[in-house]
Amino acid sequence: MDPIRIAVVGVGKIARDQHLPAIAGNRAFSLAATVSPHDPGVPEVPHLESLEQLLEDGPAVDAVALCTPPQVRYGLAAMALKRGIHVFLEKPPGATLAEVAALESRADKVGATLFAAWHSRFAAGVAPARAWLAERRIERVEITWREDVRVWHPGQAWIWEPGGLGVFDPGINALSIVTHILPRPFFLKTATLEIPANRAAPIAADMHFCDTGGAAIHMDLDWRQTGPQSWDIIVETDAGTLKLSNGGAVLSLPSGTEHAEDHEYPGLYARFATLIRSGRSDVDVDPLRLVADAFLRGKRATTEAFID
Amino acid sequence: MDPIRIAVVGVGKIARDQHLPAIAGNRAFSLAATVSPHDPGVPEVPHLESLEQLLEDGPAVDAVALCTPPQVRYGLAAMALKRGIHVFLEKPPGATLAEVAALESRADKVGATLFAAWHSRFAAGVAPARAWLAERRIERVEITWREDVRVWHPGQAWIWEPGGLGVFDPGINALSIVTHILPRPFFLKTATLEIPANRAAPIAADMHFCDTGGAAIHMDLDWRQTGPQSWDIIVETDAGTLKLSNGGAVLSLPSGTEHAEDHEYPGLYARFATLIRSGRSDVDVDPLRLVADAFLRGKRATTEAFID
Repeated sequence: MDPIRIAVVGVGKIARDQHLPAIAGNRAFSLAATVSPHDPGVPEVPHLESLEQLLEDGPAVDAVALCTPPQVRYGLAAMALKRGIHVFLEKPPGATLAEVAALESRADKVGATLFAAWHSRFAAGVAPARAWLAERRIERVEITWREDVRVWHPGQAWIWEPGGLGVFDPGINALSIVTHILPRPFFLKTATLEIPANRAAPIAADMHFCDTGGAAIHMDLDWRQTGPQSWDIIVETDAGTLKLSNGGAVLSLPSGTEHAEDHEYPGLYARFATLIRSGRSDVDVDPLRLVADAFLRGKRATTEAFID
Repeated sequence: MDPIRIAVVGVGKIARDQHLPAIAGNRAFSLAATVSPHDPGVPEVPHLESLEQLLEDGPAVDAVALCTPPQVRYGLAAMALKRGIHVFLEKPPGATLAEVAALESRADKVGATLFAAWHSRFAAGVAPARAWLAERRIERVEITWREDVRVWHPGQAWIWEPGGLGVFDPGINALSIVTHILPRPFFLKTATLEIPANRAAPIAADMHFCDTGGAAIHMDLDWRQTGPQSWDIIVETDAGTLKLSNGGAVLSLPSGTEHAEDHEYPGLYARFATLIRSGRSDVDVDPLRLVADAFLRGKRATTEAFID
């Protein structure tokens, strides 16, 4: 089978750290081009300044991976889908829920694959956690996601703007795992969002959810954590406690602890290839919907200004 | 056919003004009970203090109409659906999108009808507007929804709390019409929400949407309008201008103007009966999703405190 010719659009940190290596490591894909108006490309691969330019004058592509900030993603995705080009959307899949729904209809109509990627779902411990929880009664869930924004998002101004998600940018990773591993759907009861006086997006959030069986789910989300970082999910069940730590990489069950190699982005690209080969899309908006609900229903509190 | 025995839960202003008369005027229904911990009931109809009490000791019911504030609606709806009782949800259908999705799955599972009611879609001009627009190219849409909150929501504190929608409580009526009459889906580009210094919810909003064909949709939403009130939707098309005014009651087309009697709630109850008789649900969350997107993506500005 011919490899899928793919262009990476937006060649920032996440593209260089994750997408380009994952594409290079998967024989189902060949990197046809990179696209960015300001970042440089990679040696020996055509580099274009815009997606328009790629589609008009560049090498032919079957697929694009959109690694730009979410605020501009809809226009790029719509442009690609219009030509039947498959689209990989970095998380979050858009700046609004309605635009993602519109893209999903568009992809259906033209028969192209749209993939809303949630990389944390491919962390090593997530699939076994989901399998283990499928048959348990959930009693209580505690999510602790505390990291240092200065380390992980240095100088990324867009993340603080309206349409950027603030601390929900990492928090949505936790939600993508929890929506995937818990056997019942859940929804927000109350939330408090802390917004720095000089920013539009939250730096911390405290959230209480409830699943449809009545189990309480608490989430502590904070971007002001210096020192050790926490990305932990603890699920208490009728058969003991499950703990996913290191963002899903390490799984502890009553029977013991499993560590495994990180394979999030390789896992995403394997999935994208499968979707393309089988003519399907995968657009799960549940994590983004929970975030929208937190903005819709949450209480806001102003907190200390954040200086990058 | 036996009438559908219905209980009205939450006997506030909207129940008395609209639900009870619409039920009395439709022979498909018989009012079996009213439920409220503080409001009085109606003469010669059993009155219970809570839904639990109704389900345990009250007269048998086939359906409930939930007219309570949205913050408490999920628990009531889940309790009714658990017993296979059909549920009519006043707008907005819930305090969050995820809880409405969970109710929809629950209704599917038990084979009960769930109806997310959008009363403005049953305004007299809406169905002919939708039919007329189906074949037009949309060029521009202007939505002006300006009313006096002191007249329409006197002393309703819940509407200003997190989970209440503020000015989006009327604004969602406009969105329920526009999502229904326009031939293409649309999504938010930018929004500014004005929040009174002493409240959690917006008193005004200025929003720019875009449909998937590129047409611009502007919405001016304001709760500070004294004097004449405006509930107008203007749609410019390749075949001239359509105007829906008075909240959808009056339709002006290039060929002339039509006025018709209000029949919103009778229309809703006729639809609810049809859904129940045919074993279907109708849960369109598009208007609430657009509101959630405005909270998610919109810019906030603090404005003058609002004293009721």
